[in-house]
Order: sequence, then structure tokens, then C-alpha cells
Amino acid sequence: MDLESLLVEKAQAAAKAAEAMTMVSTETKNNALLAMAHAMEQRKHAILEANAIDLEEARKKGVKRSYLDRLMLDDNRIAGMADGLRQAAGLPDPIGEGDYSTVRPNGLEIRRVRVPLGVVGMIYEARPNVTSDAIGLCLKAGNAVFLRGGSEAILSNKTIAGILSEAAYHAGIPEGAIQFVETTDRDAVQIMLHLNQYLDVIIPRGGAGLIKTVVENSTVPVIETGTGVCHTFVDATADLDMALNIAVNAKTSRPSVCNAMETLLVHEAVAEKFLPMLAKAMEEKHCQLRVCEKCLSILGEGEMVSAATEEDWSTEYGDLILAVKAVADVNEAIAHINKYNTGHSETIVTESLTSARLFQRRVNAAAVYVNASTRFSDGSEFGFGAEIGISTQKLHARGPMGLQALTSTKYLINGDGQIR
Amino acid sequence: MDLESLLVEKAQAAAKAAEAMTMVSTETKNNALLAMAHAMEQRKHAILEANAIDLEEARKKGVKRSYLDRLMLDDNRIAGMADGLRQAAGLPDPIGEGDYSTVRPNGLEIRRVRVPLGVVGMIYEARPNVTSDAIGLCLKAGNAVFLRGGSEAILSNKTIAGILSEAAYHAGIPEGAIQFVETTDRDAVQIMLHLNQYLDVIIPRGGAGLIKTVVENSTVPVIETGTGVCHTFVDATADLDMALNIAVNAKTSRPSVCNAMETLLVHEAVAEKFLPMLAKAMEEKHCQLRVCEKCLSILGEGEMVSAATEEDWSTEYGDLILAVKAVADVNEAIAHINKYNTGHSETIVTESLTSARLFQRRVNAAAVYVNASTRFSDGSEFGFGAEIGISTQKLHARGPMGLQALTSTKYLINGDGQIR
Repeated sequence: MDLESLLVEKAQAAAKAAEAMTMVSTETKNNALLAMAHAMEQRKHAILEANAIDLEEARKKGVKRSYLDRLMLDDNRIAGMADGLRQAAGLPDPIGEGDYSTVRPNGLEIRRVRVPLGVVGMIYEARPNVTSDAIGLCLKAGNAVFLRGGSEAILSNKTIAGILSEAAYHAGIPEGAIQFVETTDRDAVQIMLHLNQYLDVIIPRGGAGLIKTVVENSTVPVIETGTGVCHTFVDATADLDMALNIAVNAKTSRPSVCNAMETLLVHEAVAEKFLPMLAKAMEEKHCQLRVCEKCLSILGEGEMVSAATEEDWSTEYGDLILAVKAVADVNEAIAHINKYNTGHSETIVTESLTSARLFQRRVNAAAVYVNASTRFSDGSEFGFGAEIGISTQKLHARGPMGLQALTSTKYLINGDGQIR
Repeated sequence: MDLESLLVEKAQAAAKAAEAMTMVSTETKNNALLAMAHAMEQRKHAILEANAIDLEEARKKGVKRSYLDRLMLDDNRIAGMADGLRQAAGLPDPIGEGDYSTVRPNGLEIRRVRVPLGVVGMIYEARPNVTSDAIGLCLKAGNAVFLRGGSEAILSNKTIAGILSEAAYHAGIPEGAIQFVETTDRDAVQIMLHLNQYLDVIIPRGGAGLIKTVVENSTVPVIETGTGVCHTFVDATADLDMALNIAVNAKTSRPSVCNAMETLLVHEAVAEKFLPMLAKAMEEKHCQLRVCEKCLSILGEGEMVSAATEEDWSTEYGDLILAVKAVADVNEAIAHINKYNTGHSETIVTESLTSARLFQRRVNAAAVYVNASTRFSDGSEFGFGAEIGISTQKLHARGPMGLQALTSTKYLINGDGQIR
């Protein structure tokens, strides 16, 4: 069978399962998730063996150490994946919840209720935990799922998806609800991006290149996730110790993640006082600074401090590097952010209610903070229990996406013979 | 200036205006809408003159009469457009409304509030009223709007957009918030479909061809609207007089609209009794029937009754033609609908609670009715005051789209120095 026919067949099976999923009870879904968690732990040796082969192949190809780290599974990580499934079982089921209800003058009763999206497509890279996380959340929200993971993790993902499919099926989930694309052929992604007839959405998770490819080529609706050029603005009235604390946390607690800070903006009224504090703290964390002209005149060039170029303002370093720029006021800070950010997470440190209000209203991003670290942009931290990704677009879902983002709605209208 | 540069310039102006729109008060927006309605009525002669030239050109090209009817403006229609703007002024402003609020254990206060989408792109065909309706609703929801209308209505649309832009600007709406593409060059659509950097969404309104082009080519997120292959299922327990009444209304009250019925399904237990009633009523309305083999054996072939082909089950006639099929039970009805429908509106006529419940749960459509005509699928009828279109996709908005569908959300997080 050629690749396209193979993918169409899988997508058809997923669409058929999605239809059957609309009749599956919450109880069945929850029991299935628990059975899947159990199966994953029972059969962890098979997963570890597959993962060892993937790691060996990846090492031979000479991929980066950070990539190997994302790919690697151990007992702890498998336990974490199983816990994720149990957590999904424990979350309230969004399906059937109503969010609009009215009776019209003609007696028609109109309700809007949450329904599954249908078939959720996921395209992702090295992390095998995305396989189980996505399967768990998609099933809980009543969807079928169509997965395409990175070629480096192919055996790990295939093993995980196989174990989970089998456990799900035996626990009453319709056959075909979990589809995993087993080929590493790169054409599979392009084909998948045009399966409009079967897939209701595609969620890409991975690096900027992957996300760009999906956004620019998909005719299936996409939820764009993940890239984060996040800013911290230290206002003239900021508590500078608080600002330093937040800046160090936002930059250095986990530099590789999307909610980490990439650029710090400082009000010029406090730049002379704050920048030396910042430089010292960042040096202790081995974090380099790329600074604007004005900041350079305050800090001086050095081993850890160099001049920023235009490119720095839009770079997601994902590393211990921070761009720093002095601005004249909150308006310049907002303008800079709205020009260079990716719509992810931004924070202002200020004691001024006026600045805080203006910043939260005008900054164009999914999450806009006052006096807190951008590192909180995360489904668990926001109270959703788990997340399938962080949307940086405005359509459908914005910011950390919990179960609700994996649903649609439907109007149910009941009458007694009304005509128009 | 080449076409692409021209469109990019317009899109940049819209994006800049969208940023400024976030600071415009509800009062200013409402006053602007009222001023725009007034200006449209004051300057209706300019609109009618432009429209007369468009009509003359269209006639020369020999377009269909139904097309000319959609294009034609008169005093009444201009008054209707002005009323639409006044109605938008009277609707509650969705911006700033909160729909999620929590305080986390660490003290972070998290709120999710409605914000404008940003720049809304509209691509549409002959109806000049779409120009004013879209401008009114988009501005009320705090968005800038980027319009591309059909070439046949170019002068009408340009005149309307010009009058409304001027009135809006004088009433305090940021300059550039209304962008109208004045060229009829067909390449403009293709360029617009890739203005991802500036447009937040594109909503196509028009025939199936236009919508297909937009969905298949756009890299800007799209909200698919409008095509409707709607079904009425007459169950075994239906009140057949009610069923007939609903069927006649759904098919004949306005056959050209998307919420009109295209296929009637009838439970075989009542087919012999119901079909002759249906055939008689439809003949009185000059509506032809294209029927399945079983129905043909009951009705016999005739001037108004012929055999259906496979193609009929998926055709949106938009005309006085109805496909009719007998089914064994509610499950076959649901399967037929989910195979051939466009996800718009479906209704069951039944006295069985079990059938009604199953039908509403399993049928995959934006609006699923029990004992009422599908013709009610409409923003005003649903209580939203007005609509920008009817979404047939599952992402972001489904069914009639009111102001809320033209908004996004944003998380506002307030702390006192929290780090993670």
C-alpha cells in the first residue's frame, strides 16, 4: 500500500472511532485511562528496550545531548507518564457541560453543550511522553487521536502507543481510537497536513521549525503552540529586589522551556541602579547578557556582557543568554513587546496600578503578568490539571490548553413543532 | 506599488489600528456605530449611484438573476444595513468579560478575559450588506477589519466602506481600522490568504467554491462557514402533521439559504403514509423530489418525482428540489447524516425520547433539533442579536457566530513577587 493510502486508512479508522466515542461514558473513559496506566507500568521493560534502541541509533547519528535527554526514558519517566494518565482519569469530564442556555419567545429551548472535537492530530518530536500525554487527554475529552512522532523516537513511541491502544480497547474504548503513524517517511507529515476530511485539528509540538512547517502547509485547522520570546519589564516604581528575584527565576530556573524569559526591559529611571544588580546575579548563574547601547554604557563590555544586535530582540535562546534593553517608559516597553514577542507570556514588575493596568490591557500575549514570573504559564499552574500544549494563537484556545481546549460545542434545540 | 506591497501596507495599517483598538471604550465604539449608521443614510445616494454602475456592469456580463438580486441595493436595503449598525451598537460589549477566575495556592490571581481577535479578514461575494455587517460587528468586538468583496460589487462596497471609515474615524475609532481592498485583481485573495503576520483570522462568506479556495489555500487561520446540506428525519413515532409542517417550512420558506433542508429521511414504518402527504404538499410548492428506490416504489415516477442518484445525497441544491430516502431506523438515519452532511443543521421529528436523545448526541452538526425546523439556525433566532456567519467547523466557533466568536481570550495573572 502506498503511504497516502495507508494514512487515509488510518485516518478513516480514527474518524469512525471518533463517532463511536461520542457514546462512551465518563466511567468507561476513566477506567480505560487507569487500565492504560497500569499496562504501561506492567510492560515498562518493553518500552525501555525500545527506547534503548532509539537512543543507540540517535547517538550514532550524533544528535545533541539535550535531544538525547528529551528522548531518554527511565523508570521514573515511565512512572510519570502513568501518573499523567491517572491524573487525566481524575479530571472532570468536560463533555456534555453546558455553557449557554435560553428559551426563545417562540418556545424553542436552545442549549450549547461541550462535545469532542473528533479526531485530534498531533505532530511532535523527540519526547516519548507526548505520546502518552496526548493519548490520555484526547481520550478523556472524547476524541480519537492520530499521532506522528519524531523519527528518533519511533520505536519508543510505537511501543507506548501499542500498549496503550491494547489496554484502551480491552477497557471499552472503540477500536481505532488511537492511531500511530509507524513510518518515519517525512512525506507522512505533508500528507497528514491535508487530511481535512478526517482530522478536525492538528496540534504541533516541538521546535520553531516544525511549528512553522505545520502552520505554513496545513489545510487542516492548526493550533499553534509553544514558541516563547517572553519579556520581563522592570518599571520605574518596581521593588527592585522583587524584580531581580523574578528575573532570575524567569531566565534561569529552566532556560530551555517556552515560558522562560528571553528579553528584560528596564525603565531608564532605574536602569543605573538595577542593571548592576542584574549583571551580578546573572553572572552567578552563568547567564550572558546581550544589551542595548544605553545598558552597555552603564554595565561596560565584559566577558558576560556584549552588545545586542537587532536579531537578539526576536531570538528564543532557550539557553543562558538574556537580551536587555532600557526603555523610556511603559509605553515603549509595550511597543517593544508587541513588536518582538510571540504572544506567549509577558510580565511587568511595578508598584504603579496605572502601569500595571495599561500593560495588561495593551500587551498582546496569551498570559500577561503583574509582579510574578512568566514561568507560571503552564496548565497545572493555572489549575487545569494537565495541558496538551500552550497556544500562542488567538483562535479557539489561547495560553495553556487543558481538556476544554480539546472540545468543541454543539447547539441542541428542542421544540414542539416550531417553524419559521 | 505592486499588489503584494499594497496589501501588506493595508494589513500593517490594520494591525496598527487593532493595537489601538484595545484602548477604545465601549462608549466610543457605540457612538461610532451610530454615527456610521447615520452617515450611511445621509449619503445613500452615493451608494445607490455606485450600485447602479455595478448592476449595469453585471448585467452586461450576463450574470444570473439571483446574483443580480443579491447585488442590488435600494432604500430599504440601505435602511436595513443602517439598522444592522444600530443593532450592533445596542449589543452588550463582550470585551473584558471574564469566563474563568481562580486564586492559586501560591496566591497568584488568575483571570481569563475576552479580548479582541485583532485583525479579522473577510472574503465575500456579491452582497454589499456583508460590508457594513462585518464592519459593524468587527468594530463592536474591538477588531480591525480587512475586507475583500466580490468584483461585481466593487463600487458599491468601496463606497460603503469609504463612508463608514470616515464616520468611524471622526467618532474616535483609530485610523486604519477599516481596510477595504479596492482592486478586483484575483491574485489579491491568494496574497491575503498568506498575510499570517497581520491577519488573525479569515472568514469566507459565499458559495462553496469560494469557501473551498480559502480553506485549501489559507495559512491564516480560517473559520469555515455556510454550506449546508441539512436533513429532516421523520421517525416512526413522529406526529406526521407536525413533520409535514416542518418539512415544508425547512425546504420551501427560503430554499436558497444554508439552513434550508436538502434531504428528507423517513422511517420506513411510516413511509407509505407520509410520502404521499409530502409529495402533495411539495408539488403545491413546485418542489421536485429525487427519491430512493423504496420511495419511488411508493410514490411512482412522475413529473415532480424522479429517482435519486448517489450525488443527490451530498448536493446543496439551494433550490426547490428535495432528496428523499427511506431508512430502517434512527441509527441508519444518523449514519446517513454523518456520512453526507456538512455539519450545519439537522432535525428529527419524533415522539420518542430515546430516538431524540440518540439523535442529538450522535449527529455531528453545529445545530441538532428535535421537533423544529432547521431554518432557525441563525444568530438572531438563537438570541445573539446578529451574526457574522454560521461556522460549520469545530474549532473556535460552531454554528451561528455572534460577537463572542469575534473575540479571543487572554489570561491576566496578578501576584506579589511569586516565582516558580
